[in-house]
Amino acid sequence: MRALNDVDIELLEQRKRGRLMNSLSGFKSANVIGTTDGMGHHNLAMFSSVVHLGSDPALLGVVLRPPVEPENGSHTYWNIRETGVFTINHVSDSWYRKAHQTSARYDAEESEFEAVGLNPVFRCGFEAPAVEESSVRIGLERVDEWKIPQNECRFIVGQIRWIEFPEDAWAEDGFLDLEKLGVVAMSSLDSYHNTQQLERLSYAKKDKPLTRVTGDGEPPE
Amino acid sequence: MRALNDVDIELLEQRKRGRLMNSLSGFKSANVIGTTDGMGHHNLAMFSSVVHLGSDPALLGVVLRPPVEPENGSHTYWNIRETGVFTINHVSDSWYRKAHQTSARYDAEESEFEAVGLNPVFRCGFEAPAVEESSVRIGLERVDEWKIPQNECRFIVGQIRWIEFPEDAWAEDGFLDLEKLGVVAMSSLDSYHNTQQLERLSYAKKDKPLTRVTGDGEPPE
Repeated sequence: MRALNDVDIELLEQRKRGRLMNSLSGFKSANVIGTTDGMGHHNLAMFSSVVHLGSDPALLGVVLRPPVEPENGSHTYWNIRETGVFTINHVSDSWYRKAHQTSARYDAEESEFEAVGLNPVFRCGFEAPAVEESSVRIGLERVDEWKIPQNECRFIVGQIRWIEFPEDAWAEDGFLDLEKLGVVAMSSLDSYHNTQQLERLSYAKKDKPLTRVTGDGEPPE
Repeated sequence: MRALNDVDIELLEQRKRGRLMNSLSGFKSANVIGTTDGMGHHNLAMFSSVVHLGSDPALLGVVLRPPVEPENGSHTYWNIRETGVFTINHVSDSWYRKAHQTSARYDAEESEFEAVGLNPVFRCGFEAPAVEESSVRIGLERVDEWKIPQNECRFIVGQIRWIEFPEDAWAEDGFLDLEKLGVVAMSSLDSYHNTQQLERLSYAKKDKPLTRVTGDGEPPE
């Protein structure tokens, strides 16, 4: 085993450290976040920091880099501050390259949708654009935000206002089969992965063996 | 496409809603967190909410459910409050069932290590136990915490104090090959997945095609 302590980590060359540190959070979701500035300019940007926060109310969190002045970037952040809404769209194996390309530095007036070749779709009354090519689309409203004191990153809390996904990927017990939809996982800053399900496991109980779960729900007692 | 709005979501049966909402954050890391209560009782618990927060300083975040009174559970949370430290250990395909079993309700005096058959290992001077079977082990110190106002979940910020991983999975450019190590991804509450890398992609630039990255770093300009 290779062992590094905090000083060893600090002494790593900056980009090498970035790739290693971004590997340490394990496999991550691959999402593009859609926003608008309220003047008709759409924005789309890649994120791998979406996290589940709660089911009732239905909340997702996302980590954003420390915002710079609006004229210099951080369009996702400032658009969410301006309009209060955003969409999270799951990336699948048929268009992950386009999703990755959204992380290039485009001007505020340029639409990443146009630049990379993805189509915006809108839900009636909801300002932020979603991605037509995405099989799982989520509309959220910003309900809270925390500035992480150590590095000024922002942790945005979004409440889910609507979701869209293919009916046939939704199991009877509520499980949504992302793998069947070709949704990809990420690792570190740039690695995209398909998945192969090992199994679903029953709710763990003391002194009781785990069993395999099918989409119809928990196995009988 | 099946569409649900916030009222539809609220009206779902509770467990069905839980499984769907937990699916919506995409593929997630599978980790067990090791802690101690400072009186020699070790705890190990499954989490899928670890998120990258920063590389300098090296920070990871993790979401914990709203803590209950210490005598009723939330051992991970109270142990971190007590000792200030914890370990994050990546789960691999050879022992994910043991990891899942740690989520059963064990008493504070019981060690999940013993109950599920995993071995604690200690680093000199660091109170929290790590997992011998894990190929990626991370020791962290709690540096901040945010109580999420909407549901009282806790978002813990941990600074990385040490890491251990197999040397041969570490690419020259800093990328750590989790897939090679058999590290699994999770989806929803109970689904475990192996991964298959599609590719690593170059840093995205405007008007420049993406290229495949090898472990030696960015392709030449």
